[in-house]
Amino acid sequence: CVHLAALIDLVRFMFYPPRCDDDDDDDASCPIDEEVAKLLELKAQLGGDDGKHQFVLKTAKGTRDYNPKQMAIREKVFNTIIGCFKRHGAETIDTPVFELKETLTGKYGEDSKLIYDLKDQGGELLSLRYDLTVPFARYLAMNKITNIKRYHIAKVYRRDNPAMTRGRYREFYQCDFDIAGQYDAMIPDAECLKIVHEILSELDLGDFRIKVNDRRILDGMFAVCGVPDDKFRTICSTVDKLDKMPWEDVKKEMVNEKGLSEEAADQIGEYVSMQGGMDLAERLLQDQKMCQSKLACAGLSDIKLLFSYLQLFQVTDKVRHAVVFDLSLARGLDYYTGIIYEAVLTQAGVAPVTAEAQNGAPGEESVSVGSVAGGGRYDGLVGMFDPKGRKVPCVGVSIGIERVFSIMEQKAEASAEKVRTTEVQVMVASAQKNLLEEKLKLITELWNAGIKAEVMYKKNPKLLSQLQHCEESGIPLVAILGEQELKDGVVKLRVVATREERNSSPVSTVPGQS
Amino acid sequence: CVHLAALIDLVRFMFYPPRCDDDDDDDASCPIDEEVAKLLELKAQLGGDDGKHQFVLKTAKGTRDYNPKQMAIREKVFNTIIGCFKRHGAETIDTPVFELKETLTGKYGEDSKLIYDLKDQGGELLSLRYDLTVPFARYLAMNKITNIKRYHIAKVYRRDNPAMTRGRYREFYQCDFDIAGQYDAMIPDAECLKIVHEILSELDLGDFRIKVNDRRILDGMFAVCGVPDDKFRTICSTVDKLDKMPWEDVKKEMVNEKGLSEEAADQIGEYVSMQGGMDLAERLLQDQKMCQSKLACAGLSDIKLLFSYLQLFQVTDKVRHAVVFDLSLARGLDYYTGIIYEAVLTQAGVAPVTAEAQNGAPGEESVSVGSVAGGGRYDGLVGMFDPKGRKVPCVGVSIGIERVFSIMEQKAEASAEKVRTTEVQVMVASAQKNLLEEKLKLITELWNAGIKAEVMYKKNPKLLSQLQHCEESGIPLVAILGEQELKDGVVKLRVVATREERNSSPVSTVPGQS
Repeated sequence: CVHLAALIDLVRFMFYPPRCDDDDDDDASCPIDEEVAKLLELKAQLGGDDGKHQFVLKTAKGTRDYNPKQMAIREKVFNTIIGCFKRHGAETIDTPVFELKETLTGKYGEDSKLIYDLKDQGGELLSLRYDLTVPFARYLAMNKITNIKRYHIAKVYRRDNPAMTRGRYREFYQCDFDIAGQYDAMIPDAECLKIVHEILSELDLGDFRIKVNDRRILDGMFAVCGVPDDKFRTICSTVDKLDKMPWEDVKKEMVNEKGLSEEAADQIGEYVSMQGGMDLAERLLQDQKMCQSKLACAGLSDIKLLFSYLQLFQVTDKVRHAVVFDLSLARGLDYYTGIIYEAVLTQAGVAPVTAEAQNGAPGEESVSVGSVAGGGRYDGLVGMFDPKGRKVPCVGVSIGIERVFSIMEQKAEASAEKVRTTEVQVMVASAQKNLLEEKLKLITELWNAGIKAEVMYKKNPKLLSQLQHCEESGIPLVAILGEQELKDGVVKLRVVATREERNSSPVSTVPGQS
Repeated sequence: CVHLAALIDLVRFMFYPPRCDDDDDDDASCPIDEEVAKLLELKAQLGGDDGKHQFVLKTAKGTRDYNPKQMAIREKVFNTIIGCFKRHGAETIDTPVFELKETLTGKYGEDSKLIYDLKDQGGELLSLRYDLTVPFARYLAMNKITNIKRYHIAKVYRRDNPAMTRGRYREFYQCDFDIAGQYDAMIPDAECLKIVHEILSELDLGDFRIKVNDRRILDGMFAVCGVPDDKFRTICSTVDKLDKMPWEDVKKEMVNEKGLSEEAADQIGEYVSMQGGMDLAERLLQDQKMCQSKLACAGLSDIKLLFSYLQLFQVTDKVRHAVVFDLSLARGLDYYTGIIYEAVLTQAGVAPVTAEAQNGAPGEESVSVGSVAGGGRYDGLVGMFDPKGRKVPCVGVSIGIERVFSIMEQKAEASAEKVRTTEVQVMVASAQKNLLEEKLKLITELWNAGIKAEVMYKKNPKLLSQLQHCEESGIPLVAILGEQELKDGVVKLRVVATREERNSSPVSTVPGQS
């Protein structure tokens, strides 16, 4: 049994031992957790398939709620990502969820049809934001900001065909990091890739590959292969489909649908099959045909420079986390003007959880399971908003966080470790009846001391149900009040996992407090 | 001069000294900051009034961007609030920004006209959420959850007349804390008030008053005063205007517009002028007329019980932070069924910043400057979504965070202390040319060691501009590379505020690292 002051010290001691590495991950798992998890799962299954009554009771198509467990995972992922952004010195901004419709007009090419408009209820015509990049450019132009390094984490909206099991929603988070400003070539660009590399490594999602290309190389390639100028964009979006369909089908679309000559298509086909590193960029700079295009040469030189910076950043020469110069990478959005990149996880399905599995032979199942990050340079976008057309060069990256959530959720499901959804440290409980007043007094002291504490909202709860609540929600300690303890002016502290009852404390018991 | 390993240790030592209270507030201010702040303000003024060109360059009416400074304040406020919610053991959820239109239908009475609808682009009819309470109730019913304690911080949307200088927007944050479940009377209700009290005290917004009433007392009062049943709601919303207009005008509206008898109005007028504590509830329980209504009696008994719990929670008997039973409090929303409350700041204008001013005589200017929190019990709302009408009793509170932001921003403006918008610890700089490679190598080591570091994106920036950047953004340390240091395998570490250059380190210099 311990006195109040000692109780507070004891709780603090258990949660904040006098080391300095008390950042986030705590909650050691206990055997009871597993049992509780099984029961909870069973409960969820029983409650979950009662579909016939849910007539209006749903969220809008392509959207979802986050339950507390999902929120706990989301918070963890955000902390990792924000931690990285802050380590790189980024500020953050926020913009409204809707913009004037005209702000979004003409920025997304064919994808504009996926924009959500608001109903005209009088006043301005509005649309939900489609990404965070266009609002960022609008913000820069509006505030005449010419350099900033900012991150922005917020939801964006696309009337797309949702595939929610694969993490594709109509409302989804983007985590954007962008560097705006007139700087020396490829330094900010390389930092964006460094950031992708850090985040994907830290999130521990298994092997990944970062593909890099440059819009100027693509345009130069199209030119030297004989694609007419006005077909650059449309051929580019056909090339973009190479990660989803084989070259034969892409070629067919180019020739049959887009009216390209078979010869030009074949030449493109040769180039877009190329992958490599700095060496490939060097080789292409010597390429008879490619070097006819000044644009392509500029892009290739920058790719070389980029790889040299990536080496300094310790990002290249990793087998399992490779950066690859890939001429087939095109990316859909219209606004890119220079370097573009995309990160894909290369392990089929969920990344393995156990350490043994992670040490297994890499590359065997190197199937692309989808993009988790992407971005590039867009030097013209801010100028589209500036009344005088003043340009602000920008480069940025967007982390496709919904796919990351899906993977983390699956990992959590597969793992034995329980996800806690609260951070409660102590449950204030009683063994006998009529102690509500005393419990409320005690919990007030705990709250005032900054301790995370709960009490049941019943006058006379059963001790068993109080202890059960602790086990269900992973509360590690119970402060139990009883007549005898009250008489003695002490509190009994019980460790839920071991069921041992502590009556020692790190500081010697302080007398005279109740 | 220090070696790399020692540098990392030194930076860590300066930011995380071996005490354990390293939570958030750091950034000591330096004299240069003030000069820089003045220049920045001047720059903002010069850049800000170029209105003629900003044709489309704006955010939607009633909405705003948050710049990095505002975001820093927002983060701090959120941390305080979330800290309190977590201390009380709340989980968190998230819901989509839009709901099916019918989900919102019939929940907000007259205010429904302020709901934003989405354009019908085929598919479901959607509306932006108007608050977080209705989506919460929908979530509970949809997932058959009968008890939960959750918080939810997110933006909501109202096509209201914005008054942005007073913190009233069309897009604004709500911070909601709600307790759902069948519990013993007034325990969760009292905890909601405890939370309001903790948050407003911690945010240090000056004096405040929490007004408390009960819908059952209002309805009972209307009944005993002779208001016809079908006029309860409309008379209630007239009473709600008492905080904005004098009784005479309210009475006029009741009699002339709503057709109430003058006698009934006068009787109401007597009751709604009453304010007090537990004593008032006791007195009204003895009131000949009032005690004719069972509903009112139930409400009054619960008010008594509430105050007894508030006493245990140490929330009452504060002069500057009073809880008052106020019969004029009505609150607009239809869905409340029991206790209701609202917190108002009672100091005109911004809360004083200096400690001396805060110790000045309170109450002199006790003018209500607006509601900063409100809530109540809504036992019927979840049942409206349940196919079988099963009720889940709920009580909750919503913090009006936008007003808090406004006040905090004004405080920050008035204060000499500079708001930092990044957390960068070290700037990696060079005194000579051609050291980009070495700088990138060094910053990579720092990032990999978890240190927040920046480097300029120029091959050969001037030392002055590197130092200037540190002063502008409050970076406390500079690691300066030079030819000599490179030869010696060391780094020079400079403290920006004092300009002293350190060459000692908390650990003895480690040999053999570069």
